Amino acid sequence: MHEITVATRQHTEFVVIDQQVQRIVEEAGMREGVVHLFVPHTTAGVTINENADPDVVRDMKQILESVVPWRGNYAHAEGNSAAHVKASMMGFSTQVFVRNGRLAFGTWQSIYFCEFDGPRTRKVWAQLIPVAQ
Amino acid sequence: MHEITVATRQHTEFVVIDQQVQRIVEEAGMREGVVHLFVPHTTAGVTINENADPDVVRDMKQILESVVPWRGNYAHAEGNSAAHVKASMMGFSTQVFVRNGRLAFGTWQSIYFCEFDGPRTRKVWAQLIPVAQ
Amino acid sequence: MHEITVATRQHTEFVVIDQQVQRIVEEAGMREGVVHLFVPHTTAGVTINENADPDVVRDMKQILESVVPWRGNYAHAEGNSAAHVKASMMGFSTQVFVRNGRLAFGTWQSIYFCEFDGPRTRKVWAQLIPVAQ
Repeated sequence: MHEITVATRQHTEFVVIDQQVQRIVEEAGMREGVVHLFVPHTTAGVTINENADPDVVRDMKQILESVVPWRGNYAHAEGNSAAHVKASMMGFSTQVFVRNGRLAFGTWQSIYFCEFDGPRTRKVWAQLIPVAQ
Repeated sequence: MHEITVATRQHTEFVVIDQQVQRIVEEAGMREGVVHLFVPHTTAGVTINENADPDVVRDMKQILESVVPWRGNYAHAEGNSAAHVKASMMGFSTQVFVRNGRLAFGTWQSIYFCEFDGPRTRKVWAQLIPVAQ
Repeated sequence: MHEITVATRQHTEFVVIDQQVQRIVEEAGMREGVVHLFVPHTTAGVTINENADPDVVRDMKQILESVVPWRGNYAHAEGNSAAHVKASMMGFSTQVFVRNGRLAFGTWQSIYFCEFDGPRTRKVWAQLIPVAQ
């Protein structure tokens, strides 16, 4: 198992982690296969989305806030229940394929670590499943 | 393929299934790898989240109900369209890593079977992908 | 890696892709294992859901539109920020198990490609991970 560290700086922040994941693939020498990513937290998730116009991520954060408002009539004393729901909506795991030693993305895609209760120092775990070429 | 049975008791219920999944890993003798979980239903899903303060799950259920209300102007005669959407939002599959024969979680995490149209007797399927240590 | 082409015809459309995925499994001769699916776009996703009453999918599309309205005060000039969020909510990847050479579904399940900004010609990538029977 491999581990990435992500230091978030804002309360809600989408951080591109392509390079760190690519480095894991290269260090392991995997040419073809699947990279599984897992977020070992409960108020942060991981998703894929556009990494061209930064307004996309800005809108995504705003839309998620309007769907699941931070302030609400919540029971959880820590006050971050919205972050728990947003993380489950994005998901705690994703997978990316590897082709010829490179992460295989669509044209505009990147992997985003999704911080919903930062800033914090976070981890992402990775597991590599090679397949025969 | 392995199968877990989950008997839900409420209409909307999050059931921790860590122990059943851990047992599958142990019976298969897998030391390192990935456990894939799949829910073979259409009104229940699976997610990861906090298993410390029970108010987190209480809030999650309430927030999801406010985002996707049970009552609405829905076409589906069975009347459970909200459950179909909630299940897709949480997802029908997840994966957990295994390290040294144990499910590898973050400090507060557990796996939750998410019932959105219970009570029912449900299944969760598991597939194990070992990796070389 | 394998590739499926999906030509969508509507702006928001859920397209069943079971047959194309089943064909990939058969052509590869995989009897037991996991099929990973990945959508290499940023305004379309993939989910599992009911394929019995077509009203379920109709309601799902309507509910998602009410949760994340197409029109809003969004910054992204392309105007399709809602599609980006819906795609992340459904997810860009899913997995299905294979048993005895067949996709293993629950009674009512199918795999849906989820178009949120069509019509377009889209791709779905697949990677097969066989397991010993």
